[in-house]
Amino acid sequence: MHARSWWPAIGVALAATSVALPAQNIADRYRQNANRISEAALKDSTAWNRLAEMTERFGNRLSGSPSLERAIDWMLETMRADGLQNVRGERVMVPVWVRGSESAELVSPRAQTLPMLGLGGSVATPPGGITADVLVVNSFSDLTAKAAQARGKIVLFDAPFTSYGETVQYRARGAIAAARAGAVAALVRSVTPYSMRTPHTGGMAYDSTVQRIPAAAITVEDAQMLHRMQDRGERIRVTLLMAARMLPDAPSRNVVAELVGSERPDEVVVFGGHIDSWDVGRGAMDDGGGVIVAWEAVRLLQRLGLKPRRTIRVVGWTNEENGGRGGQGYRDAHRSELDKHVLAIESDGGVFKPQGFGFTGSDAAFEIVKQIGTLLDPIQAGTINRGGGGADIAPIMALGVPGMGLIVDGTRYFWYHHTEADTIDKLDAREMALCVAAMAIMAFVAADMPDPLPRAPGS
Amino acid sequence: MHARSWWPAIGVALAATSVALPAQNIADRYRQNANRISEAALKDSTAWNRLAEMTERFGNRLSGSPSLERAIDWMLETMRADGLQNVRGERVMVPVWVRGSESAELVSPRAQTLPMLGLGGSVATPPGGITADVLVVNSFSDLTAKAAQARGKIVLFDAPFTSYGETVQYRARGAIAAARAGAVAALVRSVTPYSMRTPHTGGMAYDSTVQRIPAAAITVEDAQMLHRMQDRGERIRVTLLMAARMLPDAPSRNVVAELVGSERPDEVVVFGGHIDSWDVGRGAMDDGGGVIVAWEAVRLLQRLGLKPRRTIRVVGWTNEENGGRGGQGYRDAHRSELDKHVLAIESDGGVFKPQGFGFTGSDAAFEIVKQIGTLLDPIQAGTINRGGGGADIAPIMALGVPGMGLIVDGTRYFWYHHTEADTIDKLDAREMALCVAAMAIMAFVAADMPDPLPRAPGS
Repeated sequence: MHARSWWPAIGVALAATSVALPAQNIADRYRQNANRISEAALKDSTAWNRLAEMTERFGNRLSGSPSLERAIDWMLETMRADGLQNVRGERVMVPVWVRGSESAELVSPRAQTLPMLGLGGSVATPPGGITADVLVVNSFSDLTAKAAQARGKIVLFDAPFTSYGETVQYRARGAIAAARAGAVAALVRSVTPYSMRTPHTGGMAYDSTVQRIPAAAITVEDAQMLHRMQDRGERIRVTLLMAARMLPDAPSRNVVAELVGSERPDEVVVFGGHIDSWDVGRGAMDDGGGVIVAWEAVRLLQRLGLKPRRTIRVVGWTNEENGGRGGQGYRDAHRSELDKHVLAIESDGGVFKPQGFGFTGSDAAFEIVKQIGTLLDPIQAGTINRGGGGADIAPIMALGVPGMGLIVDGTRYFWYHHTEADTIDKLDAREMALCVAAMAIMAFVAADMPDPLPRAPGS
Repeated sequence: MHARSWWPAIGVALAATSVALPAQNIADRYRQNANRISEAALKDSTAWNRLAEMTERFGNRLSGSPSLERAIDWMLETMRADGLQNVRGERVMVPVWVRGSESAELVSPRAQTLPMLGLGGSVATPPGGITADVLVVNSFSDLTAKAAQARGKIVLFDAPFTSYGETVQYRARGAIAAARAGAVAALVRSVTPYSMRTPHTGGMAYDSTVQRIPAAAITVEDAQMLHRMQDRGERIRVTLLMAARMLPDAPSRNVVAELVGSERPDEVVVFGGHIDSWDVGRGAMDDGGGVIVAWEAVRLLQRLGLKPRRTIRVVGWTNEENGGRGGQGYRDAHRSELDKHVLAIESDGGVFKPQGFGFTGSDAAFEIVKQIGTLLDPIQAGTINRGGGGADIAPIMALGVPGMGLIVDGTRYFWYHHTEADTIDKLDAREMALCVAAMAIMAFVAADMPDPLPRAPGS
């Protein structure tokens, strides 16, 4: 997931105005099939094995990279071999940012390499790098207070992790604030609650009103060290070297496959995750796992002969991380069908132990979704919260499609997020199978129940 | 700590043959002072702050490096400023291994950089590196079974972490076993129960009967990936490049300072840790913290006016990691005094929350040490186990000096061990202060009680 895609899993307290709904029978109607789905899912470790294969055969998958397109080719081919229907790649043009060689070296008070990752979208330094004194601040307001000292310096934001949503602002907008204060480059402490000297990359923004300055993340350990050095009165100088560049947009594809509905094939439950990743690690949690569990969910339903009334469409969106073009492209390509998209579900928080779903939609639909949630109680994944979605489905949610995000045990998600450590071994085959079950049950019921999820009036 | 220094904290069941000892009054006699020591220690975060300063001003401290000698200079100077007695550096010649540039690149089935660290003492590859197919094995016996396939290959030991003592054998002796099977280089999965794509270095051995081949550690994640690639039938090729070299021995120093005994200054309790570290991270846990807590313990006793009958000597041993010359040098320089060394205590397991001590010595002494241990119960550090010591004090323990190792909560010690992540932020100021208290109380009582700890007959 990138900066804007973090949907807080808040439980908004709502006035209990719900009336009795036919939905109350949904749980009874689907209990047997839900249990069949869970049982079958738990007997199968294909999801984990396929994620291992995809992430290890192709590695990470940044937009514009050959590895992303090779992974997409493999996925299309394998989906066809699985016998899924209407398998295709839907063309989307994506931005191409290339990291190039990069480094950060502490040169005063002593020489030391600072493990770093340039932020996605950053400009390069001049070829010889930028060597400058460092000003450490712990917040935007601290920078404001010290603005007179920032000119000509490298500003380091050493902001402690509070929540991703809050702390990611330094990664997202640190270069703008630093440039506004006259800094020549911005460094940010990696956005994570835990570090093993691990830099975390991620997207960042510029602003048309100020200079574009290079921006990179260093580790929590080194940010804190530089901060203490400043507190001890030591002069801190760093050489930052980055050869990053933007290339022209390139073609990529949203991966699409279907289980076509038996009665109302034009009504669609769309679900999935994003197939692209940052250019570090292997993109297992973010978000290969999200794509694979949706794919496996469809494959499982097909294997069990569970053909819903409506179509279930799995999508592996491209370019979530640094452009969102996959989600936008899906919206544009399917704009005329969106009235008949009954639900969109995204998994982009890692495929750890599932806990339930967050839902954005009408009150009436929320009541029904809660009913469906009770089918997930046997696998302890029945929590249904108000509020949820994902960056890839946000463009169609904005046009009225009810949206939902898979909620998982996120204890360690941000330890690995956008790092070299985002690899399959952090995931558990059984927990992934539970994600498959949760996604399959939710999608199947939403696609099969007699009436579509009711939208809010006017949406 | 290096491979041979891991003292299992086993509680050996002994026949309860102990007789009543005067020692039973020790707890009562020293309770008041023990409580004073703990209280004062907990009001002070100098230990943490000094460890931060030392590790951040000088960085890591491999034997032969200027940073080690600068840290030693700083320590001697600061100890003198503290008013400690007989502060001096005791010269020791140490081996000088220099890592040089190094890398491991997967070239088949796809290109990917494998984060790695050459093992300390390894020879270099030829200047162009070694490119060879990889054979993955999970144990020495697996290598034996597959020996026919090993010739000309790079052998990777993908041995899961069981205990450090067991699993470190692959790091220590993997190059020998691989060379014996005709391999051209050895890779080992890093010795750790947890990884964030973190390579762990450490010492390794050669054997005069077989070729010296280059040896390096790769991450748990990549070792597992290569293993799965082999299981999927993929051909694995890696280019290993290492420019490591041994230089002539260089002078270093054991750092020594004292609180001279009031009645029997020639009787000595010696304690400390090692000042050197591997050339990665900042050597905070391994073992800057061990040196600093002993130093702080002496400073605390001095500040409290607690002058014991015998001398307490703090030592920062040099070259624990790749030679053990500091411990040997101490033995050789003090050989004539060892009969009057009443106790040696080492801290080399990280200065996390202390739990107690492991003791190696006579049964009668063990009973007394257990009594002293009760003085640590108020800070939950009173567990006294049979068996304990450390690599730096092993040479004098072999000559009869009773030995002891500080036991701490080691839950995460091996996560950081010999990695870039061995930095001060992993340590807690209060837990370090508790270590100071535990070390101070144990050393003070052993140095002050009327009779020295009884040695086993003949030792």
